[in-house]
Amino acid sequence: MKLGFLGGGQLARMMILEAQPLGLECHVFCGSKNDPAAQVCAHWHSGDFTDSSDLLSFVNKMDLVTFESEFVPVKALLEIEKKQTEKIFPRPSIMGKIQNRQSQKQLLIDYKIPTAPYVLVKTAGDLDKAWDKLQGSFVLKTCYGGYDGYGTHFGKKFSDLGKLAPLVANSDHGFIAEKWIPFKRELAVMLFRNKGGEHIAFPLVQSYQVQGTCDLVAGPMKHPQFDKIRKKLFTMMDQIDYVGALGIEFFDTGKELLVNELAPRVHNSGHYSQNALLDSQFCLHLKAGLGHRLMKPRQLSKAFVMANILGTSDQDLTLPTHIQGKIHLYGKRDNRPRRKMGHVNYIGDNIKKLISIAIKERKLFQP
Amino acid sequence: MKLGFLGGGQLARMMILEAQPLGLECHVFCGSKNDPAAQVCAHWHSGDFTDSSDLLSFVNKMDLVTFESEFVPVKALLEIEKKQTEKIFPRPSIMGKIQNRQSQKQLLIDYKIPTAPYVLVKTAGDLDKAWDKLQGSFVLKTCYGGYDGYGTHFGKKFSDLGKLAPLVANSDHGFIAEKWIPFKRELAVMLFRNKGGEHIAFPLVQSYQVQGTCDLVAGPMKHPQFDKIRKKLFTMMDQIDYVGALGIEFFDTGKELLVNELAPRVHNSGHYSQNALLDSQFCLHLKAGLGHRLMKPRQLSKAFVMANILGTSDQDLTLPTHIQGKIHLYGKRDNRPRRKMGHVNYIGDNIKKLISIAIKERKLFQP
Repeated sequence: MKLGFLGGGQLARMMILEAQPLGLECHVFCGSKNDPAAQVCAHWHSGDFTDSSDLLSFVNKMDLVTFESEFVPVKALLEIEKKQTEKIFPRPSIMGKIQNRQSQKQLLIDYKIPTAPYVLVKTAGDLDKAWDKLQGSFVLKTCYGGYDGYGTHFGKKFSDLGKLAPLVANSDHGFIAEKWIPFKRELAVMLFRNKGGEHIAFPLVQSYQVQGTCDLVAGPMKHPQFDKIRKKLFTMMDQIDYVGALGIEFFDTGKELLVNELAPRVHNSGHYSQNALLDSQFCLHLKAGLGHRLMKPRQLSKAFVMANILGTSDQDLTLPTHIQGKIHLYGKRDNRPRRKMGHVNYIGDNIKKLISIAIKERKLFQP
Repeated sequence: MKLGFLGGGQLARMMILEAQPLGLECHVFCGSKNDPAAQVCAHWHSGDFTDSSDLLSFVNKMDLVTFESEFVPVKALLEIEKKQTEKIFPRPSIMGKIQNRQSQKQLLIDYKIPTAPYVLVKTAGDLDKAWDKLQGSFVLKTCYGGYDGYGTHFGKKFSDLGKLAPLVANSDHGFIAEKWIPFKRELAVMLFRNKGGEHIAFPLVQSYQVQGTCDLVAGPMKHPQFDKIRKKLFTMMDQIDYVGALGIEFFDTGKELLVNELAPRVHNSGHYSQNALLDSQFCLHLKAGLGHRLMKPRQLSKAFVMANILGTSDQDLTLPTHIQGKIHLYGKRDNRPRRKMGHVNYIGDNIKKLISIAIKERKLFQP
């Protein structure tokens, strides 16, 4: 069976590393043979997402295809979905809906899933409407293509509106303005649903962000409203016939649990599962797409922590010779400040202790 | 860093799958691009072990090289070892000693490690000597190249000697005759030693063999003499400066614990570690060769079981859609009776229960 991955970054890399023990023949579609995923794969297909004939020719050679990023132009794939509804997972039409922040937001609202109110911002005039409706503070997020804090801007003072106006005027995709939510902590969870409609949820975790980029993840965590929201999310997944992993980011305001955003794929907040659960998110995403049964995986320790290795310079990483953590490097050729270069997983009994070891040990990669 | 693997079977495959998360660039030297290891690797080097110029050219391109099998003609590698003592691990001179059953046996005897007595059999006349010295029953094992029961013959009746004589006369490598040991169970352990002389031992396990091929492994097990023998084995590893994983197979006679044989590499009896320990044998073998510190890995469950998927026909394997075990398939193109096609790992609280689930579930691969 030929399994195709659209994109060659670390998420595809880690999916491939879990697909291979299942005996699946992995193929990756990406720009360079040195991309993280192409390095761990015998079948690299040189390709450019913006060239839809490239993309279609790749998909047509595969038996089953998945995404590592939601930012694939899905138009070309919609024709394939019509003929072979289960060939690409999550389905391109769903991917199209979630990759656009406005329709993603509307999806949450349609299913009565608590989330911050928003205003669609296509013109500079919309900024004023947003300012009024969102009570004078908002986050402006590009409708398409934002990640790790890129494509996100703040409107906190009235004078910000003038600064944001040219950004809006020059944008191809438009923005949504979301009410600014002061939160106590950010939580996240990975959900999975297979073709047969089975779903499972991983433990709730806390994520610690630095400048909009995930820095640490720790779990398991609890929140009194989580069960209720998880049920609504499962209903939404059932109704749209979602297949695969779905990452959910939450704001915990102290009073409420609000969904911040959805990631229709494996997600940084689920990397801990490689060592803390018997089946990782990468494995379960594939099982979901393959139509395998889904079972909640055994948790291997009381507590777990994942620490990202974010670039601090352009110096090559060092491989430490003595750490307790499980190392997952992405093989990226060039280190750069803030770039996600790898992560380290820890399991044990005490979250605080694990975090303190993680913070110490990950410095060894960039001494 | 370029890490080279000599051989393209499942052991190299599983080492590569653990080397990649460490960010190492893996290269495999083997006969076909379809070999299990070449399938999971971006760098395949077409090569034949019997062509020493092929072999040397591969090794010269690498920064660090290891074996997946002891049956590599090491002569060509001895020159490299002289100049770069740490480039190939375990060192070719040690590999040469262990790959030959007679010198392996002598190594055990030299370090006073309990093992069955033996007689070197190079001529038909030696068979009579063996019969006398080993009290009328022995196992004849080829000095070079035997595995999984291949290359092993029994001398249990006097009339067997006549049948074995032509085998001995036609052999290139000679045999050892080992006293036949009636045993209660077979045990095994993986030991590791790094360049700095640190060593660790995995838990003792029981292996269940069918026709000389490993079928099931279960652990952890205990034996009152294990600690003492492990110490002697560590001393031997120190004295010969062994670097990497060393698999030890034991006979438990009910009275004594005897070493049956050594495998100077990762070993089928250690596959359980992929899911039962935080660091698998594949990871620790690499860490040993890289000169990393070795720490005893956390055991993730009270009990564990590994079940081999041995071919029962030439029908392609099926990937089961609903099993509790963790699947590790080797991607072998052709199924054949007795061929090692993959294995499944189980963790839990009770060995007996795990064995019974394993035996049931592995049938699903060959319905």
